[in-house]
Amino acid sequence: MTIPGKDPHFEILKPNPLNAEPPRELLLRSFRTPAELFYVRNHGNIPEVDAFTYRLLVRGLVERPLELSMDALRTRFTEVEVTATLECAGNRRRELMDIDPVDGEPWREGAIGTAAWSGVRLRDVLEEAGCDARAKHVAFTSLDSVEQDGDRFAFGASIPLDKAQRPEVILAYAMNGAPLPKLHGHPLRVVVPGYLGARSVKWLASINLQEEPSDNYFQQKAYKLLPPDMDAAHIDWKQGLTLGELPVNAAICVPTDGAVVTAGPLEVRGYAFAGGGRAIERVEISLDAGEHWRTAELEEAGDGFSWRLFRAQVEVTRGEVELIVRAWDAAAQTQPSNPEETWNAKGYVNNAWHRVRVTAR
Amino acid sequence: MTIPGKDPHFEILKPNPLNAEPPRELLLRSFRTPAELFYVRNHGNIPEVDAFTYRLLVRGLVERPLELSMDALRTRFTEVEVTATLECAGNRRRELMDIDPVDGEPWREGAIGTAAWSGVRLRDVLEEAGCDARAKHVAFTSLDSVEQDGDRFAFGASIPLDKAQRPEVILAYAMNGAPLPKLHGHPLRVVVPGYLGARSVKWLASINLQEEPSDNYFQQKAYKLLPPDMDAAHIDWKQGLTLGELPVNAAICVPTDGAVVTAGPLEVRGYAFAGGGRAIERVEISLDAGEHWRTAELEEAGDGFSWRLFRAQVEVTRGEVELIVRAWDAAAQTQPSNPEETWNAKGYVNNAWHRVRVTAR
Repeated sequence: MTIPGKDPHFEILKPNPLNAEPPRELLLRSFRTPAELFYVRNHGNIPEVDAFTYRLLVRGLVERPLELSMDALRTRFTEVEVTATLECAGNRRRELMDIDPVDGEPWREGAIGTAAWSGVRLRDVLEEAGCDARAKHVAFTSLDSVEQDGDRFAFGASIPLDKAQRPEVILAYAMNGAPLPKLHGHPLRVVVPGYLGARSVKWLASINLQEEPSDNYFQQKAYKLLPPDMDAAHIDWKQGLTLGELPVNAAICVPTDGAVVTAGPLEVRGYAFAGGGRAIERVEISLDAGEHWRTAELEEAGDGFSWRLFRAQVEVTRGEVELIVRAWDAAAQTQPSNPEETWNAKGYVNNAWHRVRVTAR
Repeated sequence: MTIPGKDPHFEILKPNPLNAEPPRELLLRSFRTPAELFYVRNHGNIPEVDAFTYRLLVRGLVERPLELSMDALRTRFTEVEVTATLECAGNRRRELMDIDPVDGEPWREGAIGTAAWSGVRLRDVLEEAGCDARAKHVAFTSLDSVEQDGDRFAFGASIPLDKAQRPEVILAYAMNGAPLPKLHGHPLRVVVPGYLGARSVKWLASINLQEEPSDNYFQQKAYKLLPPDMDAAHIDWKQGLTLGELPVNAAICVPTDGAVVTAGPLEVRGYAFAGGGRAIERVEISLDAGEHWRTAELEEAGDGFSWRLFRAQVEVTRGEVELIVRAWDAAAQTQPSNPEETWNAKGYVNNAWHRVRVTAR
């Protein structure tokens, strides 16, 4: 089975709702990920939306509720382009599943991608609507339909008003210079750089200004980091930490785990990313279980909201070799060494050192 | 030897320049640290400054250079109070020194404190001076005198203009409602919440708007995170990561390492802190080397720029017990498990799980 508009090598983790990731080695072809290589993490169906009759609703604690056509959005607000990485909170979940059972899709390292998103600033739209002083959160709902625990409802999320008013948060109608593909939210989606992907709601139906966070299942229950001793059979969502900005992370994409390589010089390539607009300052590679590290070369830098690709030349001798990567962000924050340390029942934000085992011949 | 104005139990790591920290168990008496329990990390002498003749100079890439008396500062700008934690980048260095030699003072867990700082917003002063569009950094110099590698110069530092314009960054003349003590920068100091303490320059002489970061030794050389494989005898500063925001950290202050406690219920208390305005969301205690964790109770919360004190009730059986703490910040970022993982030749930002060994009888 192939996905229309996607590279034929995509790995489909779940056909419905569609969850699929690109082979990690293809992710590194460019700083900006082409749409055909961008991961898909849907929670419900893929709605058919007619851009001509589409209307975005802005309501709740606002002085002037708005109903905006795509034409009104494009003509009444200034177009901006923001290059930002989106990463699913479940990226690298598979490593956690190898430790203990986790409920969720077994993502490898491909639930991440970087694009140039074009659209209008959310804060410009909020300014036109006029925020009431009581508003503290901006909630989004989708035009999709999710089935969860026997209920049917639209996907939703919210972000704090402070974040919504930052210049990097946009309502996007284009991805890498082309109209937003159907799979990625056509005709309009939110892009919340620095936050987990789930807050960047696709097929945006409405924006609601409110005092409290969204009461949507995906804000109140899923996408929470549960305490390490809580297992999947005994979940108490109230004890979960609501995910927002993402921690620092890195992955080796080339060579891939299990690869057979030639003994001698070997190029190691991958990505590093930190949420919250924190720049990646250093990426390090170890070939001896973390005893010694060499600094990798960093490629093109964005403005802190996009990943940093890296490459390092190492020398491997015949036999089994474990390559390890870790990154440091601008706050001198680095990653935990083992996924056992941060295992959680929903399998979120695994940012342990990433390990790739290869055989050199 | 005791330090005037400080608790007699202070530990003096170096008398000149004065470096001293409070016993960690006293740190926990209150959310706001009294001046007599606030750590002192000086780089040079303690200048005698007459508040009546004192003038703050604001210059460089500004439209209107300023020369402000304390009276002018107080009357021409709005007074604000900011409660913020300052933490030395060398806090917990001692654990790194136990691994390999490190150049610097052997701080335990006491190089941190929280105070209500009163003064005026730096951005208000910058607005009065008028920033030139070329200005990208705000450099501070002190009235002190530092001796380093045979040279004599004033301590200095800089922060990016973006940070300088944030509402939390102030020029402070009071600490916990009293005039700034001499040891803490009388009559005026910078307070840069969320950044390493060294950027909060004391005895502030001048503010300079410039295109590049400060060329002061303490911005260009010290206070850089060196690569893990670089030893103290072979330092190449250019490879260092300039420290700014601090990573997430936590420490157990009660009981203290080596304490003899009574078998049975035991209260564990301490602090957790993350730089960059990130809130502490969870603190966890382990008694079995990180296999299992229980969630500690968090006390009074500030606005993200101050520490979070915690307490947890645990049960200890007779024998040697290792208590471990780790924290999670709002970005679901936690700490590395062992200081070996992040050892660096200058001994900065040790944020490994903090371990305290006690004997239960």
